[in-house]
Amino acid sequence: MNAPLPVADAARLATATAAEIAAAVSSGTVTARAVIEAVLARIAAVDPAVNAFTDVTAERARARADRIDACRAAGEALGPLAGVPFAVKNLFDVTGLPTRAGSKINRDLPPADRDATLVAKLEAADAVLVGALNMGEYAYDFTGENVHDGPSRNPRDLSRMSGGSSGGSGAAVAAGLVPLALGSDTNGSIRVPSSLCGTFGLKPTYGRLSRGGSFPFVTALDHLGPLARSVADLGLSYDAMQGEDGRDPGQTPRPFEPVSGFLGAGTDGLRIAVAGGYFRTRGLPEAFAAVDLAASTLGVTETVDVPDAARARAAAYIITAAEGASLHAGRLAARPEDFDPAVRDRLLAGLAIPASWVDAAQRFRRHFRDEMLKLFQRCDVLIAPATPCRAPKLGQKTFVLDGEEMLVRPNLGLFTQPISFIGLPVAAVPLWVDVGEARELPIAVQVIAPPWREDLALRVAAVLERTGAARAPVAGV
Amino acid sequence: MNAPLPVADAARLATATAAEIAAAVSSGTVTARAVIEAVLARIAAVDPAVNAFTDVTAERARARADRIDACRAAGEALGPLAGVPFAVKNLFDVTGLPTRAGSKINRDLPPADRDATLVAKLEAADAVLVGALNMGEYAYDFTGENVHDGPSRNPRDLSRMSGGSSGGSGAAVAAGLVPLALGSDTNGSIRVPSSLCGTFGLKPTYGRLSRGGSFPFVTALDHLGPLARSVADLGLSYDAMQGEDGRDPGQTPRPFEPVSGFLGAGTDGLRIAVAGGYFRTRGLPEAFAAVDLAASTLGVTETVDVPDAARARAAAYIITAAEGASLHAGRLAARPEDFDPAVRDRLLAGLAIPASWVDAAQRFRRHFRDEMLKLFQRCDVLIAPATPCRAPKLGQKTFVLDGEEMLVRPNLGLFTQPISFIGLPVAAVPLWVDVGEARELPIAVQVIAPPWREDLALRVAAVLERTGAARAPVAGV
Repeated sequence: MNAPLPVADAARLATATAAEIAAAVSSGTVTARAVIEAVLARIAAVDPAVNAFTDVTAERARARADRIDACRAAGEALGPLAGVPFAVKNLFDVTGLPTRAGSKINRDLPPADRDATLVAKLEAADAVLVGALNMGEYAYDFTGENVHDGPSRNPRDLSRMSGGSSGGSGAAVAAGLVPLALGSDTNGSIRVPSSLCGTFGLKPTYGRLSRGGSFPFVTALDHLGPLARSVADLGLSYDAMQGEDGRDPGQTPRPFEPVSGFLGAGTDGLRIAVAGGYFRTRGLPEAFAAVDLAASTLGVTETVDVPDAARARAAAYIITAAEGASLHAGRLAARPEDFDPAVRDRLLAGLAIPASWVDAAQRFRRHFRDEMLKLFQRCDVLIAPATPCRAPKLGQKTFVLDGEEMLVRPNLGLFTQPISFIGLPVAAVPLWVDVGEARELPIAVQVIAPPWREDLALRVAAVLERTGAARAPVAGV
Repeated sequence: MNAPLPVADAARLATATAAEIAAAVSSGTVTARAVIEAVLARIAAVDPAVNAFTDVTAERARARADRIDACRAAGEALGPLAGVPFAVKNLFDVTGLPTRAGSKINRDLPPADRDATLVAKLEAADAVLVGALNMGEYAYDFTGENVHDGPSRNPRDLSRMSGGSSGGSGAAVAAGLVPLALGSDTNGSIRVPSSLCGTFGLKPTYGRLSRGGSFPFVTALDHLGPLARSVADLGLSYDAMQGEDGRDPGQTPRPFEPVSGFLGAGTDGLRIAVAGGYFRTRGLPEAFAAVDLAASTLGVTETVDVPDAARARAAAYIITAAEGASLHAGRLAARPEDFDPAVRDRLLAGLAIPASWVDAAQRFRRHFRDEMLKLFQRCDVLIAPATPCRAPKLGQKTFVLDGEEMLVRPNLGLFTQPISFIGLPVAAVPLWVDVGEARELPIAVQVIAPPWREDLALRVAAVLERTGAARAPVAGV
C-alpha cells in the first residue's frame, strides 16, 4: 500500500477530472478519503457563493471513501470511478433524505429508504456521493432559480443564471466542486445548464438509463444523465450507469454498449450536418457562431432542414404541461400556497389542457419521430444550438430574439425541446466564441445522434474537445 | 352426398340455432345454399319492419354457401359453424363495403379491401356472412336509434328500442333473421341490446378477441363479441374467434381456451353472489326481479357490495368522452353537419375534457381493477342487472329511476359501464319476469366473471337456460 500523498495534492485533485481522480486513487497516489476531504473543504469554501448544494452527505462520503481505501489496502481492484466524488440533482433518491425535487412540499416526505438506481450504479463503480443539488421546482424550469432554496448561481458570473432545471448540477461541475453530477432532462434540463455554465452534458436515448428512485416530471419525456468537465468523464459515468434494473417500466432492454473505448475514434466516415430551418432562427448571433465554429472544426458544410421542429416543440409543451399538471393535481389542491407561484400557475393552466390536444400531440410525436429517422438515413449526426443565448442575468424575465421580446423562462429551451421530444441522444458541448456580449461566457451546441447511438454524439464531442474548440475549465470562482 | 331436403325444412332451419344449422349442413340434411336462400328470403320479408340490416351481402353469401356445399360433396369435413348464417355490426370491415360505423361520413371511405379478423375467423369455421347491421352512430349510443339509417326496431315490440349501440345485432338475432351476430361493447353495447331484445350476449375479457379490421370507438375499452339465441351458440362462435392475429395491438396473447365442451358443467362448487350496493339501486323493479329470479334459480343467497361502482361509471364516461372526441376531432372540424346532432354535441363536449381528468380516471381504473380482483378471491361469479328497465319506446328521452327523471340515452348503460371499464368477461342472459309494465318483454342480467374466465360466465348462463329461467325465442314479428 502506498502512503497517501500530501494534502496539497489531494486539494489539486479536488478539481481534477473523474478520470484523473480514479487513476490517482486506483494507483494509490492519493487516498479516496483525502480526495473527499479536499472536496468537502472546497464545497464549504466555494458553495456559499454558488449555492449548488442543498445537502452535503459528508459522513456518508467519508465512510464510503474509507471503505474504498480499505479495499485497496486489501489488494482488491477498484472500480473505474474509484474515489470520484459526485453529486446528484435533488430529485434522485438518496437514502436518509426526503427527495425534495426542488420543492418545499416534498420536504415533508419520509426520507428515502433506498438510493436511486443510478446513484447505486455509480457507487458500485466506486464513485462517492457527496451531496444533493439545487434545481428548479419540480424540474419545471430552464433558469436554475428556486424560490425556496435561492438560485444556483453561474460560477462563471455569479450574477447570472445557471440554467435549469439541473442548475445545481451545472454549477457544481463548472465550479469544480465535483467532477461529475447527475441531472434530469425532460425538455432540456441537462443541456441548458451545460450551455449556460459551460460543462459537457449527455442526455442519453429515452429509455436507456433507469429512472428507478427518481422523482418524475413527465414520464413520457424524462431522461437522466451526467454532466462533467470532459467527454471522457461523460463516457466513464455513462458506461457505469447502463443496464436494466426493473425499477423503471419505461426503460428499454438494451445490451451493454460501452463508449469509453471508442471516444477517440474520430469522425472519419461520419456524415455530420448542421440543423437548418428552425435551428437557424430565434437565437442570438453567438448561438449560431458556436454552431459554425463546431461545423468548421469538424469540416462540416452541409445543412439539413429539420421539418416541423416548431410543431414538435409545441407538442412537447402540451404533453409536458398536461402530464406535469396531472402529476401534481393533488398537491395543487392541497397545498397551492407552497408552490413557487410561477410554477403553480403553469401547472394550474396545465390542468385545463384537453385530452384531445394531448392525443393529437402524441400522434404528431410518432409522425415526427418517423420523419427524423428518415433524416438520419441521410446523415449520422446533427449539430444545433443548445440555447438561444449565453447565461441571462438572474431575475431577467425577457430577452429579444429575432426582434421579438420573449419570456426567458420557457424560451431558454426552444432548441432543446424538439430533440428530447422524441428521445434522441444528445451531447451538449460548450464553446467560447468571439461574438456578441459577455464573450467570457460559454454557450453550447447540441450534438444529436439517432436512437441508441450515444457513441456517435460522444465521438463528435471528443473531437471538438481534442481540437480545443470545446472546453469546460473549472470556473475561477 | 345426401340430397338436399325440401325447401320447407331449410325455411325452418332459417330460424334455428347455429348448432342446429351446423349439424344439419354437416350431415347433409340440408345444403348451406338452401339455408342461405331461406335466410335471405326471411330477411327480405321481415327486415323492412325491423330495420336491422344496412347491407345484405347476398351474392357473397351464395358463393360461399356453394363452396361449402362443394367441399362437403368432395368429402371434406366441414367446420363447426358449417353453413351458419351470421351478420356483423357495420363497424366490422367487410370486403367491398365502406365501414360506415353507423355514420353518414364514413360512407365516403373507400370500400374495405379485407374482412375484419373475426369475420374471417367465423368464415374459416364455415359460417356464412349475410350482411352488415344497423348501429348507433360511431357506437356512442345505448338506444339503437340512428338518424341516418333509421332506428333498428325491437322485434318483440316494433314501437320500442332495440338498445345500442349494437341494436341491429340484437334485433337481427331476436327476429330470427340470423342465429348469430357480432357486436361491439365499449360501455355496454352488446349487453344493452341483449337485454332489450332478449338475446344471449357475450362480452369477452378485454384483449381476448382481435379487433383487427373494426372501426374503433375507445381503444382502451372496446370489446367485440357475439349475440345469439342460445348459450351453446355463444360458445361455438367464441371458440371459433379466439386466437391472435397481430392486427390488434391491444390484444393479449392467450392460449386457446375453448368453452364449448364445458358449458354443461353446472355450477357445483362455484361461489356465486348477487352484486349489491350500486347494483341494487337506480333500476325499475323488473331489473331486480330478474336478478332475484336468476339468484333463486341458482340457489344464490349471498350479496356482495361492489365498492366505488358509481365512480367507475363516471371514470368510464370521462375516458370514453375524451378518447372518442379525440378520435373524431378531424371529422368534427371538417363535417360537423354530417353528424347526428346528439352525438356531435357529446363529442364536442368531449374535446374539452382535461387530460388531467383522464389521467385521474386511468389511475382510478387501476385501483378499481385491483379491488375487483380482491372481490373475486371471495366469489367466482357475480350477478347484476344488465339494464335498469325493459326496452323504452322509440324516441323516449327520459325515464324515472329512484324518483329521479334521467335521460334514457346515457343511462341505459348505468349497470354495464362499471364492468366493461375494467374489461371483465360478462354473459348477458335474458329473462322474463312477472313484475312491472310490458311483462311480455325480456330483461337481462349480467353474469360477471374474473378476467379470462369466460367459461364461468357461460356455465352459469347455461344453467339458467337449461332450467328455463332464461330463454331467447325467435320473436313473433
